[in-house]
Amino acid sequence: MSTKDSTLYDVVGIGNAIVDVLAKVGEGFLTERRLQKGKMTLVEAADAGKIYADIIPEREVSGGSAANTVAGLASLGSDCAFIGKVHDDELGQEFQRNIGAAGIDFFTRPLTEGPSTGRSIVLVTPDAERSMFTYLGASKKLSAEDIDEETVKAAQITYIEGYLLDEGTAKDAVLKACEIAHKHNRKVAFSLSDKSCIENRCDELLELIRTHVDILFGNEDELKALFREDDFYKALDLIKPLVEVAAITRNAKGSVVVNGRVKIFVEAEKVADVVDTTGAGDLYAAGFLYGFTRERSLGTCAMIGGICAAEIIGHYGARPEVSLRGFVRNRLRQYGKRA
Amino acid sequence: MSTKDSTLYDVVGIGNAIVDVLAKVGEGFLTERRLQKGKMTLVEAADAGKIYADIIPEREVSGGSAANTVAGLASLGSDCAFIGKVHDDELGQEFQRNIGAAGIDFFTRPLTEGPSTGRSIVLVTPDAERSMFTYLGASKKLSAEDIDEETVKAAQITYIEGYLLDEGTAKDAVLKACEIAHKHNRKVAFSLSDKSCIENRCDELLELIRTHVDILFGNEDELKALFREDDFYKALDLIKPLVEVAAITRNAKGSVVVNGRVKIFVEAEKVADVVDTTGAGDLYAAGFLYGFTRERSLGTCAMIGGICAAEIIGHYGARPEVSLRGFVRNRLRQYGKRA
Repeated sequence: MSTKDSTLYDVVGIGNAIVDVLAKVGEGFLTERRLQKGKMTLVEAADAGKIYADIIPEREVSGGSAANTVAGLASLGSDCAFIGKVHDDELGQEFQRNIGAAGIDFFTRPLTEGPSTGRSIVLVTPDAERSMFTYLGASKKLSAEDIDEETVKAAQITYIEGYLLDEGTAKDAVLKACEIAHKHNRKVAFSLSDKSCIENRCDELLELIRTHVDILFGNEDELKALFREDDFYKALDLIKPLVEVAAITRNAKGSVVVNGRVKIFVEAEKVADVVDTTGAGDLYAAGFLYGFTRERSLGTCAMIGGICAAEIIGHYGARPEVSLRGFVRNRLRQYGKRA
Repeated sequence: MSTKDSTLYDVVGIGNAIVDVLAKVGEGFLTERRLQKGKMTLVEAADAGKIYADIIPEREVSGGSAANTVAGLASLGSDCAFIGKVHDDELGQEFQRNIGAAGIDFFTRPLTEGPSTGRSIVLVTPDAERSMFTYLGASKKLSAEDIDEETVKAAQITYIEGYLLDEGTAKDAVLKACEIAHKHNRKVAFSLSDKSCIENRCDELLELIRTHVDILFGNEDELKALFREDDFYKALDLIKPLVEVAAITRNAKGSVVVNGRVKIFVEAEKVADVVDTTGAGDLYAAGFLYGFTRERSLGTCAMIGGICAAEIIGHYGARPEVSLRGFVRNRLRQYGKRA
């Protein structure tokens, strides 16, 4: 049975529903406060408040890794849904409005009590690196009950962000989604999300990947962390038997796709001015899955992923600022490929 | 304009029309006679006769590099033509019968005087390596007049073997074919054929490739020789701007396809018993072009090439002994790909 019969959605994303608060800071801001650079650090509401008090917020934009990915897919012209938990507060309503305006179905019932909508303070240093301090809030309350069988069944691909496993609470939701997807012959894509998500739970993650994941996304550091293996090429050989496809990003070195006996190396897009790398991995996944759901070759999928990532790192924020469809079409045309 | 409009042929092959005389010999046979191992050496009729006198011919089979490739393509189900020169003698008639029986159109007028049909004495050592001693004979008489515009125009791809440039006489024919192909928006594929063809004419070859070749075939040693570059990965970067696609074989290491910013590494097929490597490159090209003319992804093209090469090195001779179509379909099915 094809994964394409009677699907309503190309992709359903499942992830933390987060609003990003972006601020530019100097290197000193991080070192003075002993804040970890280049990673995502989970913080409590109080700590988030402390950092927030010291910054000048540049912009507040809906974020969340899987939510960014489906927003990218929607901008490419794909049909998407999102599952994630907000509180019915001001930020939560903003998140809902944004995702709805992007044309993405979002039916998850918001909390009316308990923690407020999650937020991530994204500090962008002059080198365009982003350091994130995330208060998960309502996101953590995502449970198996929120995974609607009809939505998952209706999607060719269920895309799950690894951040969901960060505090373990959403694991039941993740497993339920994987089981529904495979019961209906759909594919499961999973993003490793962040080194900090991996380092303390390699075995658990490997078991999940081996059992449930068809398409794996991650970057070079995450893949190496997953196998506790310093040699990138060895790590590529280790992931090969576990998944159908692994798409691994490498910043300026482009990306590599592993598909059984085939490894595809794709050079990075040229980007004139890297402003903020937030969302680069999310948008790479969006472009890749756009190609994948249209049965393009894996090399072209990786190329489209790279093009989408290039758009997102050229400005602040992790949601596209142009129609990705046109942006990708123009770039592909330069390479003599159809969009 | 697409290269596919109103094509009668998938591929027209242009090359030396040669009958292979296969014989098994020990390592000593080569060293005693100071014969070069693992390469193709051009010999005169008299020298060919001297080697021939000392061997026990295992089989006589139609050969020729591009002819082997179109025979492979025909076995895969592609429509092909062949252009090459035989003499109207016994060997020449055998060559014509064989290529006709394979379903390949072959209209080149045979010689009725002058040199006899070309032959290649293929000495196979116990390590399955082949050393070839080729008397080109009638093949050398291929001229621009033999390149029929209608035939080249009718083919999606014109495939030219590098051996044709060996003695320079067929160069006009090669250039005429390239010009006709491009005039009609067809593609030109070219095989580097042999290190000995390259070493003394790198600049001339590079100019031909840069000007006329869309798809380049060769092996690792040939590519390195072409650029006088010992580092294979550097040689891959050097070929990148010159052609649309380069497909480079690496024996047990599989093959690499370079396509602009994308490099695809495909592992080699497992072969239980390597008997005779004659024709491995020719059949790789056949499988690759079969996939290419059917718009399969380049990774799949390389995979099909590897499968066809695996069939040919499992027995003596460079023409397939089974229906490649079924052979490829079964192997691809094992990899979860459609044929």
